[in-house]
Amino acid sequence: MRMYDIIDKKKRGGTLTKEEIEFFVQGYVDGSIPDYQASALMMAIWYEGMNKEETTNLTLAMASSGDMIDLSEIPGVKVDKHSTGGIGDKTTLIIGPILASLGAKVVKMSGRGLGATGGTIDKLDSIPGFSSERTDDEFIRQVMEIGLVDAAQSGNLVPADKKMYALRDVTATVDSIPLIASSIMSKKLASGADVIVLDVKCGTGAFMKDYESAKLLADTMTDIGRMSGRKVYAFITDMNEPLGRTVGNSLEVLEAVEVLRGNGEERLTELCMELSKCLLIMSDVMGCGDYRNEGLRDKAEKMIQEAIVSGAALTKFREFVKAQGGDDSFVDDPLKLKQPLYSFDVRARESGYLASCDASEVGNVSCILGAGRITKEDKIDSSAGIRIYKKIGDHVEAGERIATLYTDKEDILDEAAKRFLDAYQLSQNNIINRPVIYNL
Amino acid sequence: MRMYDIIDKKKRGGTLTKEEIEFFVQGYVDGSIPDYQASALMMAIWYEGMNKEETTNLTLAMASSGDMIDLSEIPGVKVDKHSTGGIGDKTTLIIGPILASLGAKVVKMSGRGLGATGGTIDKLDSIPGFSSERTDDEFIRQVMEIGLVDAAQSGNLVPADKKMYALRDVTATVDSIPLIASSIMSKKLASGADVIVLDVKCGTGAFMKDYESAKLLADTMTDIGRMSGRKVYAFITDMNEPLGRTVGNSLEVLEAVEVLRGNGEERLTELCMELSKCLLIMSDVMGCGDYRNEGLRDKAEKMIQEAIVSGAALTKFREFVKAQGGDDSFVDDPLKLKQPLYSFDVRARESGYLASCDASEVGNVSCILGAGRITKEDKIDSSAGIRIYKKIGDHVEAGERIATLYTDKEDILDEAAKRFLDAYQLSQNNIINRPVIYNL
Repeated sequence: MRMYDIIDKKKRGGTLTKEEIEFFVQGYVDGSIPDYQASALMMAIWYEGMNKEETTNLTLAMASSGDMIDLSEIPGVKVDKHSTGGIGDKTTLIIGPILASLGAKVVKMSGRGLGATGGTIDKLDSIPGFSSERTDDEFIRQVMEIGLVDAAQSGNLVPADKKMYALRDVTATVDSIPLIASSIMSKKLASGADVIVLDVKCGTGAFMKDYESAKLLADTMTDIGRMSGRKVYAFITDMNEPLGRTVGNSLEVLEAVEVLRGNGEERLTELCMELSKCLLIMSDVMGCGDYRNEGLRDKAEKMIQEAIVSGAALTKFREFVKAQGGDDSFVDDPLKLKQPLYSFDVRARESGYLASCDASEVGNVSCILGAGRITKEDKIDSSAGIRIYKKIGDHVEAGERIATLYTDKEDILDEAAKRFLDAYQLSQNNIINRPVIYNL
Repeated sequence: MRMYDIIDKKKRGGTLTKEEIEFFVQGYVDGSIPDYQASALMMAIWYEGMNKEETTNLTLAMASSGDMIDLSEIPGVKVDKHSTGGIGDKTTLIIGPILASLGAKVVKMSGRGLGATGGTIDKLDSIPGFSSERTDDEFIRQVMEIGLVDAAQSGNLVPADKKMYALRDVTATVDSIPLIASSIMSKKLASGADVIVLDVKCGTGAFMKDYESAKLLADTMTDIGRMSGRKVYAFITDMNEPLGRTVGNSLEVLEAVEVLRGNGEERLTELCMELSKCLLIMSDVMGCGDYRNEGLRDKAEKMIQEAIVSGAALTKFREFVKAQGGDDSFVDDPLKLKQPLYSFDVRARESGYLASCDASEVGNVSCILGAGRITKEDKIDSSAGIRIYKKIGDHVEAGERIATLYTDKEDILDEAAKRFLDAYQLSQNNIINRPVIYNL
């Protein structure tokens, strides 16, 4: 088998066999296939696409390119949730404790973030003492003991994805549905969960800007899951404004605590509720049921509300923080977290209804404030970020405060405030916001 | 400017500017742009194509990526002829002496061959003592003295093409008209001729299999020539069987001598006549005229026939061989050339008309016999090759000799003979062969 022929076949619109895909992935990881042949194939795939079988075979070959985490020691069904990434998305911090408090086994491997805001691990790192480094043994023991773990991906998890993603990133081949789907799903398959709930973000702050492409990505990932023997459900959710009231690492951790106290912002709470219901129903806590079953949904909702009202979910959150070495006292005293040097109120230039938002620009602003990384080497300021008081559809008066910026860097406040305001459009007409979940 | 944006622009169907193309070519040659980005761009160009301006800008950027030969010392118009490559194509060896004997200045830089048969330089190398290494000074002096030179490309001529071609060869991006056209024309522009006649081969033994793609390549190269201030005429000629009666290096040199003596095979002679007429008319010998002018064509034909009949063309050939260090005595005594150890007659399996030929397979057979290289390191056997007695349209009797194979390798004769016979199809019906020139 020759890599040349594989490139040529795909270029001519052919369908790659399992053997050809495995030959490529193994050869690329072991270095026998050079970057320049891999990038030619990526570009041909960008043009020709891949069918379901090819995409699944690519995902499986990538998943098995390095360590596969063996969770068979943990009895029962292991659940995982993955978001394709958005601005202010702290749902993982909320859903994990809710589910674990109800008896589900939540196994989560998260990445660090690049761009806009940090990843889940970066958010958790804002808690003093918290560590995302877990050995396989620690990982498994923690799930058995408290039902919840969130660890950084180990070094040799899906090396094929690391190499392919880095290459795609510099050869303009990131925006390919089969390549995105196999990148995400290979990591999910390698980290061993039986049930995977996907939150495919769609809108100005997401990679997928329109519903059609988000739906295609969701369907592709669901197909991969089914063909690889995992149970997968994919939500398509709104990312046309930041999720919830905060963007930034410690700010989002504190907002997650508020949701677990039952004081969450409406749309964020609704999304967390649906994602939690779905995971709970598909887990063995509710007999591995069907999320589409209304009776199960009602039952799950009651269980989740009880977990919040009783404080069980928040207690589980504290247990989780402590299990990973963190100091949970910030839950009672937010000042235990690092505080920013500066805070700056952003006020509306004129009156009107908030009509639309370039959410990715809000992400850029939070990045300037210090909440995200532009290059891998950048250090994140855990206290930097934005608190947002108004959502799309809300009315604002000229001069009314719509957000507060937090940062340690005084000299960028003017630019950040200007760009934040520019990211929103006002309308004189009443605006009805989009639903938070598109495909309920 | 970022290479990423250039890839992305082309991928989305955009038109690259002169500056973007120069940025790519210069960066690729100086190593600041890596292979994997270049191959992604090549694949995007394979899909999206390039318009005339882009192709010309690419050609110009490539041509100036290394040494440009300055022929301004040589007074008058310098002419060059280039073939896109076929089996048994020895026209350069014939046309050069004819034109030089009539007073034209023929400047030719040739490559060595890879695959099927050797290149023109490999053919000339079968003459004892012949050297294709010329310094720029020697190159210019020889043109001034005898009107004809054929040298191997110097090390730093169009380095962009060397690097790009090597990359395309392993990433399945060779078969792109703008990339083929710019590869050929960049070398023509860098080697300094004013008039360039192109022989675009078309058929089973050529890179272009059908008339449409050959025409597109011919038009693209003509456009590049016009937009770069060179005079270019492109022929599209038949390559559905080997050209002339021989395939192989010394065999082809001897066949060239036969044509210069006026004893050439009909189709080969016709092609050499037209190419020579075109070059002669466009040169300053005939006032840089228009090949389409019938009067000029008649006049040129008479001059060329006189050059052959008088022996002037053959004398010029001997002069040329001697000027580059070769021993011209083989012209009178072919046994001065290396002789093969074995010769083997191939006979028809049944009676019929020769209906079609897979000429590239005939090339493969000559390669097996030792006449070509499979890898750059292979050594060519100058006496290996094939003498062909029958052309498409000829009738053969069962058992009649249709070719003789020459080689030093006894053990491959059976396979070579079988594959040679398999390359031809017989018909019981009278066959009329295609014209040798399609676009006269």
